[in-house]
Amino acid sequence: MRMVDLIEKKRDGQVLSREEITFIIDNYTAGEIPDYQMSAFLMAVYFQDMTDEEITNLTLAMAHSGEVIDLSSIEGIKVDKHSTGGVGDTTTLVLAPLVAALGVPVAKMSGRGLGFTGGTLDKLEAIPGFQIEIADEDFIRIVNESKVAVIGQSGDLAPADKKLYALRDVTATVSSIPLIASSIMSKKIAAGADAIVLDVTTGDGAFMKNIGDAKRLAHTMVRIGNLANRQVMAVVSDMSQPLGEAIGNSLEVVEAIETLQGHGPADLLEMCYALGSQMVVLAKGAANLTEARAKLQEALESGAALEKFKEMIRNQGGDVAVVDHPERLLTAKYEFDLPALQEGVVTKIVANEVGVAAMLLGAGRKTKEDSIDYAVGLKLHKKVGDPVAEGESLLTIYANSEDVAEVKELLYANIEIGASGEEPELIHDIIVE
Amino acid sequence: MRMVDLIEKKRDGQVLSREEITFIIDNYTAGEIPDYQMSAFLMAVYFQDMTDEEITNLTLAMAHSGEVIDLSSIEGIKVDKHSTGGVGDTTTLVLAPLVAALGVPVAKMSGRGLGFTGGTLDKLEAIPGFQIEIADEDFIRIVNESKVAVIGQSGDLAPADKKLYALRDVTATVSSIPLIASSIMSKKIAAGADAIVLDVTTGDGAFMKNIGDAKRLAHTMVRIGNLANRQVMAVVSDMSQPLGEAIGNSLEVVEAIETLQGHGPADLLEMCYALGSQMVVLAKGAANLTEARAKLQEALESGAALEKFKEMIRNQGGDVAVVDHPERLLTAKYEFDLPALQEGVVTKIVANEVGVAAMLLGAGRKTKEDSIDYAVGLKLHKKVGDPVAEGESLLTIYANSEDVAEVKELLYANIEIGASGEEPELIHDIIVE
Repeated sequence: MRMVDLIEKKRDGQVLSREEITFIIDNYTAGEIPDYQMSAFLMAVYFQDMTDEEITNLTLAMAHSGEVIDLSSIEGIKVDKHSTGGVGDTTTLVLAPLVAALGVPVAKMSGRGLGFTGGTLDKLEAIPGFQIEIADEDFIRIVNESKVAVIGQSGDLAPADKKLYALRDVTATVSSIPLIASSIMSKKIAAGADAIVLDVTTGDGAFMKNIGDAKRLAHTMVRIGNLANRQVMAVVSDMSQPLGEAIGNSLEVVEAIETLQGHGPADLLEMCYALGSQMVVLAKGAANLTEARAKLQEALESGAALEKFKEMIRNQGGDVAVVDHPERLLTAKYEFDLPALQEGVVTKIVANEVGVAAMLLGAGRKTKEDSIDYAVGLKLHKKVGDPVAEGESLLTIYANSEDVAEVKELLYANIEIGASGEEPELIHDIIVE
Repeated sequence: MRMVDLIEKKRDGQVLSREEITFIIDNYTAGEIPDYQMSAFLMAVYFQDMTDEEITNLTLAMAHSGEVIDLSSIEGIKVDKHSTGGVGDTTTLVLAPLVAALGVPVAKMSGRGLGFTGGTLDKLEAIPGFQIEIADEDFIRIVNESKVAVIGQSGDLAPADKKLYALRDVTATVSSIPLIASSIMSKKIAAGADAIVLDVTTGDGAFMKNIGDAKRLAHTMVRIGNLANRQVMAVVSDMSQPLGEAIGNSLEVVEAIETLQGHGPADLLEMCYALGSQMVVLAKGAANLTEARAKLQEALESGAALEKFKEMIRNQGGDVAVVDHPERLLTAKYEFDLPALQEGVVTKIVANEVGVAAMLLGAGRKTKEDSIDYAVGLKLHKKVGDPVAEGESLLTIYANSEDVAEVKELLYANIEIGASGEEPELIHDIIVE
């Protein structure tokens, strides 16, 4: 088999066999196929697309390019959840204890965020003492005992994906559905998931800028998951404005606590119910989504979910007191309000630009080496569709520097106030196959 | 400017500016843009095509990526001729003295062939003593005195093309009209041509397998030549079967001599008139193609072209005696006939496979390092459309080995005899713009 012939085959719109795709991934991972052939292949895929079967074979070849984690010693069906990313996305912090409160095991391995704000690991580390590096046997023991642990990804998961992603990034081949789908699904499969719930975000703050593409990606991932013998469900959700009200690590921990206490933002809670009920159904903790949602609601309202969060923090060495005194996490030196410059209705809060503003404050990393300031961030007081009076605060800026002129300018440029506006639809599609 | 943005721009079907294309070629030649970005770009070009203006800018950037030869000290308009390649293509050997006999300067620099049979330089070197390495000042002096010299390409012409071609070859991006057109035209412009005549071949033995693609390539090259201020004409010619009767270096020299003596194959002569008259018109040696053809015919029939060939051989140190005694060149140890296995009409002589047969005899190179056996080759006695009796010789094999079983098998597999067949049209299109 010669790579040049396989590039030509894909270029001409033909379907590659499992053997051919495995040949490509194995040899690329081993360094036998050079980057310059792979990038031509990726561009051919960009134009010619792939069948579900091809994407499945690509996913499995990538998943098996390195270590595959064995979670079989954890009792029950292990359901992983993945979001294609957004701004102010606090769902995992709420979901993990909420779902675990129903007895469904949540054995979650997360990566670090290289986005506007930190990833789930960064947010958890905003809790004093919280450990995300835990040995495999302890991880398994904790999940078996308490049903929940969220730790840092160990080992060399899907190295083919790592190598491919770096190449796609510099060759304009990132935005290709088969390549995105296989990248996400290969990592989830390598991480040992039995079943997967996907949150495919769409809008300014998301990878998929339009709803059609997001739906196509979600449906593709559900189908290829099934072909790879993993049950998969998905939610296509809005990320045109930030999710919830908090953007920044400590601020999002506080928001998660408030949500588990029953007084969090409505959109964040709705996302947690939507994703959580899929997780519960896949783990056979309920017969259907309606039943699962009722159980989750009960776990939240009874305080069981909040207790589970405390248990999770305690298990991982964190300071549980923050749950009862979340204000202790708010240590930023300065708070500034951003007053509305006119009266009207909020018509736009451009999620990715608001994320950049939070990053400028120090809440996220520009490069892998940057450190994060947990205390800083933004707290929205108004969201799209809300009426606002002139001078009323749109949001509070939490900063450790007095100079926030640039941040304010960026925020003003990306929050629009008009004569009329409506709250955007939060959930565009729910895919249960 | 970032290469990844330019890849994306082309991927999305946008038009690149002159600055952008020059940035790509200059930085790729300098090694600043890596192969993996260039191959993704090439695949994007494959799918999205380029405008004439883009191809022109690409051509000029490539032409100026290295040395550009200055032929201004040669009097007159220097017309170069380029063929996209074929099997048994003896035209340059006939054309050079034929056109020069009219006083039109032919200052031709050729490359070595890496094809089934040798290139023009190899064929000339089949003449004992013939020198193709000649210093620039001698080359210019000879052309000014005698109007003709054919020498080996010196210097580093269009290094961007060399580097790009090697990359295209292993990334399935060879067969792209803008990339082929810019590759050919950049080399001709770097070689100092004022005007260019193109022979775009089509059929089994050619690069362009179908007539439509060949015509599109020819028209594209004529248009971009004009945009680059070079007058260009083109002929789209048939290469489904070999041109002429001889395939092999010495055999083709003999065929060239016979053609200049007035008894060569009709198709080869017709090609020489078609291409030669375009060269003469572009050099302003005649007002139109009809007048040019009449002058060429006269030069051939009067023996002036044959004399010019002798003069060319003498100037370049070759043994002129071969022109009067061409049989001296036929030194192969063995001659074998290939008898027809049935009666009928020749319906197919697959040019590229017949070329491979000649290569197996030693007439061409498999790799750059291979040496060529000038004496070996094939001489066709029948061409497509010719009737043939059972047992009648289809061709003669000139070999230096007794074992030609494989060659015979290959030839039989690629020469078809049927109930009826017609001579293919030789010239599909003549482009004069």
